[in-house]
Amino acid sequence: MTTKHNFGAGPCILPPSVMEQAAKAVINWGDSGLSILEISHRSAEFESVILKTQLLVRELLNVPENYSVLFLQGGASTQFSMIPLNFLVGKQKAAYLDTGYFAQKAIKEATLFGEVTIVASSGDKGYAYVPDNYNLEKDVAYLHLTSNNTIEGTEIFDFPNSSVPVVCDMSSDIFSRKINVRDFDFIYAGAQKNMGPAGMTLVIAKNSFLETVGHPVPAMSDYRIFRDNQSMYNTPPVFSIYVSMLNLIWLKSVGGVEGIEAVNKKKAELLYREIDRSPIFTGTANVAHRSRMNVTFRTNDQLTEPEFLKFATDRGIVGIKGYRTVGGFRVSLYNALPLSSVEFLVQVMYEFAELKKDVNSLKIIKPA
Amino acid sequence: MTTKHNFGAGPCILPPSVMEQAAKAVINWGDSGLSILEISHRSAEFESVILKTQLLVRELLNVPENYSVLFLQGGASTQFSMIPLNFLVGKQKAAYLDTGYFAQKAIKEATLFGEVTIVASSGDKGYAYVPDNYNLEKDVAYLHLTSNNTIEGTEIFDFPNSSVPVVCDMSSDIFSRKINVRDFDFIYAGAQKNMGPAGMTLVIAKNSFLETVGHPVPAMSDYRIFRDNQSMYNTPPVFSIYVSMLNLIWLKSVGGVEGIEAVNKKKAELLYREIDRSPIFTGTANVAHRSRMNVTFRTNDQLTEPEFLKFATDRGIVGIKGYRTVGGFRVSLYNALPLSSVEFLVQVMYEFAELKKDVNSLKIIKPA
Repeated sequence: MTTKHNFGAGPCILPPSVMEQAAKAVINWGDSGLSILEISHRSAEFESVILKTQLLVRELLNVPENYSVLFLQGGASTQFSMIPLNFLVGKQKAAYLDTGYFAQKAIKEATLFGEVTIVASSGDKGYAYVPDNYNLEKDVAYLHLTSNNTIEGTEIFDFPNSSVPVVCDMSSDIFSRKINVRDFDFIYAGAQKNMGPAGMTLVIAKNSFLETVGHPVPAMSDYRIFRDNQSMYNTPPVFSIYVSMLNLIWLKSVGGVEGIEAVNKKKAELLYREIDRSPIFTGTANVAHRSRMNVTFRTNDQLTEPEFLKFATDRGIVGIKGYRTVGGFRVSLYNALPLSSVEFLVQVMYEFAELKKDVNSLKIIKPA
Repeated sequence: MTTKHNFGAGPCILPPSVMEQAAKAVINWGDSGLSILEISHRSAEFESVILKTQLLVRELLNVPENYSVLFLQGGASTQFSMIPLNFLVGKQKAAYLDTGYFAQKAIKEATLFGEVTIVASSGDKGYAYVPDNYNLEKDVAYLHLTSNNTIEGTEIFDFPNSSVPVVCDMSSDIFSRKINVRDFDFIYAGAQKNMGPAGMTLVIAKNSFLETVGHPVPAMSDYRIFRDNQSMYNTPPVFSIYVSMLNLIWLKSVGGVEGIEAVNKKKAELLYREIDRSPIFTGTANVAHRSRMNVTFRTNDQLTEPEFLKFATDRGIVGIKGYRTVGGFRVSLYNALPLSSVEFLVQVMYEFAELKKDVNSLKIIKPA
């Protein structure tokens, strides 16, 4: 449907069939004679949408019964403060693993609510790796992790076997690979990568962890209120939830998380192979922690970066510019991005490298 | 486009042309080759959308330059706590006018942050009116009002000339009538009535009022951070903002707030006239405070309510059932609802009344 290869970091590509169904529902949803944008969230029809979305999350991620699945607003950034407001206030301290830009944002917000211990940081090497050897004090309220570092292109593949509750920001890799929900007490994710359009935040929380909150919190910051009202204490982001449902139905149809993980591995392998093969590109993340969702790399000669960006853009490649504070390139390989787009990108990278080789050869034979 | 007359209280009807443009953008936005759901909020294209939406708000409501226009998430319910977190903490107390269900929700959240004075309440008469005679202490941080009480069907037509900052929840009547923004220090509104789809919240705030916050607040609760980052500190609700822009362009094309206010007055007059004329319906709000957005009424014989609901539903009328805690009927006349839909409803109400009259006549001549 779209004529571009969209490698954007989020809001990101969704399957064409999802876009088509979403567009139809904006005009006339099902046989209702109404647009999905004008239906009441209290209607039986929408109640079945939010329930189905919740059940799809449960099924696709194998969420145990003693966990709640909640839909909120405000993105992961709102969770950065809502989590310590709930789980750090009144407790000794909380532990955070510092793995990059968004982990630091989470840490900064937490310090407003209590004491924060940074158990380890990969800031010493530009966040090119994920620390995996650190001591965790036993009296912390929780350990906070970022499973995938969107900007730095690193990902956690082995989660700690922790005796304290583990809270994890999975914004950019949820639904991309199998996880064991039982390894966590609290998972959160902005929707706009592998779940749906921007404007919705997924929370998966162990009920017993939610019950540890002993102080009053505002209604819209109280996870138990979302749980007890099926995420409809107030008007939810109807369209974002609806499109997420469509997208999760699509995910199920292509083999679920297990099926997509196999494709995601292939896509990442293909791209990293070209980066490693190419004489002009270099990956920025340590090989052991290379993200399968966000592949970060540079050209060896930084001066050629704008040139490659133009070369790729001219060929319909979108969204590969590195994050504004980091530079270089970031190629996002979210679920809906087809393998064929990665094959196309790799071909373009190869052609660019060949072109540069020829130019360099030319230079050698050119008279000085 | 839709085959129904949608009188729903929100998420509510939007103009058919807006739905059509929104649906097109979900498939291919402009000439981008990308869906509006997959574009980066950091792209120049979306930056121009959010800027244009802001400028339309400024133009349509005549917002003075020393006010900020912000787009948040979480609905008015999030504002219920975010406002006292910012403006009550560290101050003496805040004053609230209790005019119904949502005013009470705002009050409840505020009590978590400091002392609350309820300057007046219309709870003594089932919230059928808006108190307009009350004393306001001078040392309060702000006075909080609800301009339109969606559930109770009342509206404030004269705002107080107050020496303290006035904060106003305008969720259900913003853009429906002219207001003088200078009468307020802080205006907020969930988008899902007259602005756009659910998932976005509008804030219009006097900059000097924002600067009165002297204590640290979390980033996503800090209005100044939204202001200083053009409402893009984190990923905004892209689609809700885009559709709001389309809807505000539509509003401008039909004569702006002044133009729509004239139509809204006509629609409300027509409906209230039938309620007052009809032998079987009675309006629930005091005549002086009757809302032009949400018209609440009952049948004189409560037993006929389900019957009228079915009669109307069978004729394509949607969303007129009263709020679950209140009962009766609530007919919402938001901007996008055409006058012809009100004419149709009035006709249906008339036919129903005639039918009941015949039935009652029949009863009289029937042998006992």
